[in-house]
Amino acid sequence: MAAGNTFGTILKFTSFGESHGPAIGGILDGFPSGFEPDMEFVNDFVQKRSPSGSIWETQRKEKDEAEILSGISNGKTIGSPIAFIFRNKNIKPQDYSEINKSFRPGHADYAYFKKYGIDGQSGGGRASGRETVARVFAGALALDYLRKMNIEIFSFVSAIGSVNAEFDPEILDKNTIESSVLRCPDSVAEKAMLDLLENLKKENDSVGGCVSTFLKNVPAGLGEPLFSKFNAALSQAMMSIPAVKAIEFGAGKDGLKLKGSEYNDAMSMNSGKISFDSNHSGGIQGGISNGNDVFFNTCFRPPSSVGKMQNTVNRSFENSELEIKGRHDVCFVPRAVPVVSAMTALCVLDLLLLNNAYQIL
Amino acid sequence: MAAGNTFGTILKFTSFGESHGPAIGGILDGFPSGFEPDMEFVNDFVQKRSPSGSIWETQRKEKDEAEILSGISNGKTIGSPIAFIFRNKNIKPQDYSEINKSFRPGHADYAYFKKYGIDGQSGGGRASGRETVARVFAGALALDYLRKMNIEIFSFVSAIGSVNAEFDPEILDKNTIESSVLRCPDSVAEKAMLDLLENLKKENDSVGGCVSTFLKNVPAGLGEPLFSKFNAALSQAMMSIPAVKAIEFGAGKDGLKLKGSEYNDAMSMNSGKISFDSNHSGGIQGGISNGNDVFFNTCFRPPSSVGKMQNTVNRSFENSELEIKGRHDVCFVPRAVPVVSAMTALCVLDLLLLNNAYQIL
Amino acid sequence: MAAGNTFGTILKFTSFGESHGPAIGGILDGFPSGFEPDMEFVNDFVQKRSPSGSIWETQRKEKDEAEILSGISNGKTIGSPIAFIFRNKNIKPQDYSEINKSFRPGHADYAYFKKYGIDGQSGGGRASGRETVARVFAGALALDYLRKMNIEIFSFVSAIGSVNAEFDPEILDKNTIESSVLRCPDSVAEKAMLDLLENLKKENDSVGGCVSTFLKNVPAGLGEPLFSKFNAALSQAMMSIPAVKAIEFGAGKDGLKLKGSEYNDAMSMNSGKISFDSNHSGGIQGGISNGNDVFFNTCFRPPSSVGKMQNTVNRSFENSELEIKGRHDVCFVPRAVPVVSAMTALCVLDLLLLNNAYQIL
Amino acid sequence: MAAGNTFGTILKFTSFGESHGPAIGGILDGFPSGFEPDMEFVNDFVQKRSPSGSIWETQRKEKDEAEILSGISNGKTIGSPIAFIFRNKNIKPQDYSEINKSFRPGHADYAYFKKYGIDGQSGGGRASGRETVARVFAGALALDYLRKMNIEIFSFVSAIGSVNAEFDPEILDKNTIESSVLRCPDSVAEKAMLDLLENLKKENDSVGGCVSTFLKNVPAGLGEPLFSKFNAALSQAMMSIPAVKAIEFGAGKDGLKLKGSEYNDAMSMNSGKISFDSNHSGGIQGGISNGNDVFFNTCFRPPSSVGKMQNTVNRSFENSELEIKGRHDVCFVPRAVPVVSAMTALCVLDLLLLNNAYQIL
Repeated sequence: MAAGNTFGTILKFTSFGESHGPAIGGILDGFPSGFEPDMEFVNDFVQKRSPSGSIWETQRKEKDEAEILSGISNGKTIGSPIAFIFRNKNIKPQDYSEINKSFRPGHADYAYFKKYGIDGQSGGGRASGRETVARVFAGALALDYLRKMNIEIFSFVSAIGSVNAEFDPEILDKNTIESSVLRCPDSVAEKAMLDLLENLKKENDSVGGCVSTFLKNVPAGLGEPLFSKFNAALSQAMMSIPAVKAIEFGAGKDGLKLKGSEYNDAMSMNSGKISFDSNHSGGIQGGISNGNDVFFNTCFRPPSSVGKMQNTVNRSFENSELEIKGRHDVCFVPRAVPVVSAMTALCVLDLLLLNNAYQIL
Repeated sequence: MAAGNTFGTILKFTSFGESHGPAIGGILDGFPSGFEPDMEFVNDFVQKRSPSGSIWETQRKEKDEAEILSGISNGKTIGSPIAFIFRNKNIKPQDYSEINKSFRPGHADYAYFKKYGIDGQSGGGRASGRETVARVFAGALALDYLRKMNIEIFSFVSAIGSVNAEFDPEILDKNTIESSVLRCPDSVAEKAMLDLLENLKKENDSVGGCVSTFLKNVPAGLGEPLFSKFNAALSQAMMSIPAVKAIEFGAGKDGLKLKGSEYNDAMSMNSGKISFDSNHSGGIQGGISNGNDVFFNTCFRPPSSVGKMQNTVNRSFENSELEIKGRHDVCFVPRAVPVVSAMTALCVLDLLLLNNAYQIL
Repeated sequence: MAAGNTFGTILKFTSFGESHGPAIGGILDGFPSGFEPDMEFVNDFVQKRSPSGSIWETQRKEKDEAEILSGISNGKTIGSPIAFIFRNKNIKPQDYSEINKSFRPGHADYAYFKKYGIDGQSGGGRASGRETVARVFAGALALDYLRKMNIEIFSFVSAIGSVNAEFDPEILDKNTIESSVLRCPDSVAEKAMLDLLENLKKENDSVGGCVSTFLKNVPAGLGEPLFSKFNAALSQAMMSIPAVKAIEFGAGKDGLKLKGSEYNDAMSMNSGKISFDSNHSGGIQGGISNGNDVFFNTCFRPPSSVGKMQNTVNRSFENSELEIKGRHDVCFVPRAVPVVSAMTALCVLDLLLLNNAYQIL
Repeated sequence: MAAGNTFGTILKFTSFGESHGPAIGGILDGFPSGFEPDMEFVNDFVQKRSPSGSIWETQRKEKDEAEILSGISNGKTIGSPIAFIFRNKNIKPQDYSEINKSFRPGHADYAYFKKYGIDGQSGGGRASGRETVARVFAGALALDYLRKMNIEIFSFVSAIGSVNAEFDPEILDKNTIESSVLRCPDSVAEKAMLDLLENLKKENDSVGGCVSTFLKNVPAGLGEPLFSKFNAALSQAMMSIPAVKAIEFGAGKDGLKLKGSEYNDAMSMNSGKISFDSNHSGGIQGGISNGNDVFFNTCFRPPSSVGKMQNTVNRSFENSELEIKGRHDVCFVPRAVPVVSAMTALCVLDLLLLNNAYQIL
């Protein structure tokens, strides 16, 4: 979609703002009118992407409060675009004077420079985790709408580095997830993850991980073949999140090792309804939801900003070294959980509205 | 993009046709005018997705010849939509009379029924590998254009079941790949893969696999933040291919286990140009190509049609059993290679044109 | 929408084909599934754009029969793209050998040459009335759908040259319109129009005219602010028809001479429903239908091909003269009537589906 | 384009804000990077849509100053979305307490109510001239870009009520236009127009008019067939402006009365370049610019708010009377001139970028 800052077909989310500019914000256009969002739910949700205060997270702290500029009046959506902004309060451009001289390894600096011909933070300020605050706000409105349709989205940390969590999809519980500092439903794994993060903090290094997502009560029939398949749309949504490098549905990458007779999700009648004996397909067949839980994993690379000396090239195109100072996230996967939920919600509500368009007679 | 049959922003590919209808076809709109496609290259490429005649592949054989209806005149593109059709010659609806009574496990039958309320093949005929012939033709035109810009796309089989191929990205060679019956650059792995396929053929079972893709000489600066990131666009493209269940870029899912200091691709000057010491990011940073090879894996589940008795539900919503007779693919990953290349080419040429739009002054 | 051959947001119509290529065709994507089109109605409608055999019309005659390639099975739409083609049977490229040497005055030849750098008919073959056959077929499907929702579209000739028709919007009748050779509801005016056309035929000259359209029973609430206003969408649709040079809604251009107190359509309750005392706004206020008849005029310039010697420039960029031989339309406004209806129907059904998307709770 | 608040394909303008909410604003996405806008020019241009202080204009006065939130850094565009807001300072919701009880004749109140089910100003606040401030700001950036490419846009008042201006397209001058209180290049007509406005002011009535626009130095080849024709795109742009009811290109509606031999714009070589002997086509042939001046008229109905008692229906669906008090525009055509220029500039720059996308080899 041209310049790339808009997501969705019927429900369109447009994001704007640089991390070091005056504000981050967005427009959510195409939201049904007459809906009364639970703003406490929305604002609480936005806070979920703030650092928890743990030592392995960035200390850039700003209470993010949206100012709603349009689209909601007397507590209700009115059918016009919902515009909102978050002021950037904690900008210290001087922090960046040193690193602006070189292209930071693993960052978007060089690629953005080649694309836009822009020096310094101004361009790279767009490829920043800060930008996701707008997605989380817009996504919270969509989440609120979906839960009133009885559609629930569960996202949680399922892996950090080599530590994998175990969980039972049947008994996922939001309170359990949210009471975990790492948003991990497996408390044993969580302990090992915390140990890993503390060690990496001491090493000034970082690590990636994985967010798993289950969608419950999604009606069968969502997604549009061929290029707006449910999994194609979700993949675009997930890959749009900074640092995401892989996505897999259902049995995912490991599923290719199964035999077809093992992989196929057999169907049977159960109390007058169709049920599936397994869910290797992740609730999506031929790109369309089949009524089973939709399930996928979103995988994040480690944060690029590490406190170790690294070889790079400076903006005069000479070899140089760079040590990125200050506190940075050792791992941003726990904070990415609400971002994954938010993008999922925007995607699902868009597909719901799109599917609804055709149910006219 | 609404009903889902169109891919791309500037270069728009629209697909139509059911596997059991009169024809499969497509429109490629937005192709630059004045280009003289090498039709021998194009037609040869289309044949690559036909079965090789090996026992582990479907025997549905039709020489696929496109009829070009518009957009090319006197051997040159003229700027108008390039429409083309492939007649379906080998239609035997009676083959399907039995299986039409039940929802085939692992297939799109049930999801399509819930979406469109349509009985029988008519709906499911869209969610068929047959449809990809249109993509391959359109993609071949894009591939031809890209190679004249010196951009090369290498796709090949890197895994079938648990057998992984080894390869050196620096010495990929199209002849080696194409002379392999499995399109696998590792002849040792290929032998093990063939053994696996023969055994599964005897078992009437199937297996999945993985296609790896390298893009060489992609200029830095392609992809549009946020939602049209190079990796987001490629993910949408890959997930639109039937049976794709996972995609990963660069170090992929395994990359999350690396430390940031290991993952970051250090840069240095090399003969006056920037080079990267590694390519964990898969040539994409912040969603924008960085000039390194773009690299990703596309993972396919096993084919759903297996010759074993399976439990399912029939269209009267009763438990039933189904044995899918006839010859089916044990594995369609080798035949998926040109489909992956084709969708990649459509995606890359679209991003090239899109990026070019802004280079105006 | 990029290369320009697609119309609509939810219901997407894509057109392809050159007037002198193998076929003209289209894809109608996003049509609701489960609809049983009345193919006799559709095919009859397509014939309406063929020449009537009158001396003032082109003699290029081909019975236009669509071949449906996909999207309709067992007489019903199945939710997949409806692709169809019309073979061009009557191609005589030699007719064009002379005129290909020069840019025809009033035609798109020179503008297309500057855009696509293409010589000869190949490019200009797109800017041809022939292309509208695809629109008329797709539009007929939409018309058939709309009339089953009780929405009726009346288009007719309201002016040719300086001769204006009089008509009463309350008693428009399709039979009266269609039984008129000029599709004009005013038989007195029609006689004057026919005289004018015969005189111009003798002079080897041509003339333009105007098609008026009334939409009855359009529900209030269609159209999307700001840029997808009902009138904005219809204007795009009308201006996409070859030779259209003006469009006006309701009181139109003359309405600017009224005082606001005269122009405003006063409302009152009438048998429990809102009615309007006038319809200067053409049934659209703030871009949204208000439940009154939607009314607009579409104005066509005279055909460019006239049998008189004209000054022009040849393709070697020298001054030259050109006399366009053969039989050409003196006026194509009567034949444009079904094209106007068809584009209107595509536009209205698209807006209906779009509006329906949001009616979810 | 779905919810309707976005215009353009490559250069995308999205508008938000209600006239009685906290702010009006917009996002201009896809603007080329590295451009240094002349902010004095931009801000001066924005002021042009403010009331001049004449008695026949509304007295709602607010100095409109944009706050730029993103996309411009150190005075240059950086390739990311340009977001900006105008705070609404002069909100007096109490002014509307009375009129909120009834649907105002000629306004969008009733149509919006039927669409969104929203009572009161909240919905109707979108269908307000106030919204155009965002268009004018975004359009000024596009205008600034275009004039640096030597493309100039001249818009001016050519008719108010029955008073028509005369002008010579060859000697249009921005200073002359802007020094006229009515933005009319014909000082004799302007005097008659002023007399008309003063009389209508006394009558508490209103009147419409027409804005003419000439584009000079537009390169041949802009516009995309079929549905993104230059005239189709401009028509969508113009019809999106509040109160526009007609648009005509070149000879326009009167052109249909000409004979083809008169209408056709003959071509000849002139100092080595092609020139046209007339411009009845308005510089557009087959939907593509031909290098001649692009010329069109945009016609506005009279303002709906008049100080006379009118019959209407109240929100309890009873017949009622309504007298709209306060000062309102007798005619908003002079203030619409910059809005027409702005939308034209957005449209032309979008088509330029779109056309540029294909010029790749």
